[in-house]
Amino acid sequence: MNSVKQAPGYYRYTIGDLELVAVNDGYADRPVEGYVKNVPTAEVEAFTTEKLYMPKSSVRVPYTSLVVRDGDKTILIDTSNGDMGPPTTGNWMDNFKAAGFDPERVNNVIFTHLHPDHINGYRLKDGTCMFPNAEVMIPEPEWEFWMDDGKMAGVPEDKQFAFKNVRRVFSPIANDITLFGPEKEVVSGITSVPAYGHTPGQMALAITSGNERLMVMADVTNHPGVFLRNPEWHVLFDMDPETAIKTRHRMADLAASERMQVSFFHAPFPSTGYIEREGDGYCLVPVQWS
Amino acid sequence: MNSVKQAPGYYRYTIGDLELVAVNDGYADRPVEGYVKNVPTAEVEAFTTEKLYMPKSSVRVPYTSLVVRDGDKTILIDTSNGDMGPPTTGNWMDNFKAAGFDPERVNNVIFTHLHPDHINGYRLKDGTCMFPNAEVMIPEPEWEFWMDDGKMAGVPEDKQFAFKNVRRVFSPIANDITLFGPEKEVVSGITSVPAYGHTPGQMALAITSGNERLMVMADVTNHPGVFLRNPEWHVLFDMDPETAIKTRHRMADLAASERMQVSFFHAPFPSTGYIEREGDGYCLVPVQWS
Repeated sequence: MNSVKQAPGYYRYTIGDLELVAVNDGYADRPVEGYVKNVPTAEVEAFTTEKLYMPKSSVRVPYTSLVVRDGDKTILIDTSNGDMGPPTTGNWMDNFKAAGFDPERVNNVIFTHLHPDHINGYRLKDGTCMFPNAEVMIPEPEWEFWMDDGKMAGVPEDKQFAFKNVRRVFSPIANDITLFGPEKEVVSGITSVPAYGHTPGQMALAITSGNERLMVMADVTNHPGVFLRNPEWHVLFDMDPETAIKTRHRMADLAASERMQVSFFHAPFPSTGYIEREGDGYCLVPVQWS
Repeated sequence: MNSVKQAPGYYRYTIGDLELVAVNDGYADRPVEGYVKNVPTAEVEAFTTEKLYMPKSSVRVPYTSLVVRDGDKTILIDTSNGDMGPPTTGNWMDNFKAAGFDPERVNNVIFTHLHPDHINGYRLKDGTCMFPNAEVMIPEPEWEFWMDDGKMAGVPEDKQFAFKNVRRVFSPIANDITLFGPEKEVVSGITSVPAYGHTPGQMALAITSGNERLMVMADVTNHPGVFLRNPEWHVLFDMDPETAIKTRHRMADLAASERMQVSFFHAPFPSTGYIEREGDGYCLVPVQWS
């Protein structure tokens, strides 16, 4: 018998009548150095190695998109890295297909925000659109920010990549994009909740069916094992750290108070659970696999 | 597109040069009433619903066997329910085969103890042996206890089932069984560690390769979410509860002190993680899926 291949990286669960499927895109090993901007590296490393059992000097940050099946409709929330992520990613489409999905039959792609690891799966390096028949839906303040040429010109050249990448991915369909504001029903059962700070226009998404509800937290935290427990830490990727902290507390308090199921793009697979208050922060109680 | 079928229930990881594969056999929903013998039902229910987000009035207890691949050798530790478990079990063999295993090519089956949910997968209801070419290995004190006709005669008739079931499963191969004592190398790299109390002769198994080690905790706890946090609670199934408590503390202290990876037969899939001290007890920090 040969070496055992890992089972496909998808996980199915339900919220009311909706089927949800978490689809994994591997992980990135981030250097601890520089990962948290307002805390000494040694303190971060002590936390990630002792509390999270991570290897020394790197933080393992997973990527997981969420698919919502509502009857015949397939709605994808964030597309992951496509063919532009680190070498420890790239199985997303295989996992998506292993779950029985056909990218040509996706009805809606909703983006929580426009960072590369969330949008690059929409369009490959060679320009191929992976979800050609889907309505693309983007938070309006997010779109306004990244498509603003003045904003792009105002940042150093090495920070212009994310702006240029938004244009690379979306310019060919710019006229067909549906923009949505905060507190709107984006599609039936899925409502936008402002979660600004990580990016200027990030939206969380509340998914409701019957009396069940799940909050798609997007990047309200980077790895929730790190930033729920330490909500005041500034992850490298939070563009407005002080606003991100306020958003983190507001969203975590909401989920904890309502005992609402949540998902995080950067949580360990299957990336869903519940938030409890713990000490000065919170922790994620993962769902029990079934 | 049809409803999404869950991905096969197996998970691959490594300890040194060994490949380990957790193979899931579903779960049982146990009534909270009676599940813990020395604690009021309401207190247990408050814990399982509030802290573990379980449904009211039942405790969801998963079953997961462990396979060890050492070069060309395949070693199975506990066989799960076979075709005699509750209706929420029974996919074990499908999951085992999905991982690429062939039951006829299993070299060793090691049992931690002889409760029905650990042994019934070895022999189906109709008498079929599922691992016909494997050497069967059983803790000696466990075998002595269950095969003792005097002990069987000494318990009420409704408690004789487990004794009779051991005879049903193993009598046809009784002369070919390898018995092992405590602190023995059962097969290369796997050493028995006495873990008495749950049953009279249960053995945990320490798996070592290079400088990595994992402790197969077997039923040192039933659901570790419940009994690591509350190590003094008597689960219904612990045959000598006071000894089981001592074993639980000893094994959990060992794992916590050595920051050793552990697996539990009744932990949420993939049933492996690390033990940390928390309050008066412990908690299981699950591994990050990869």
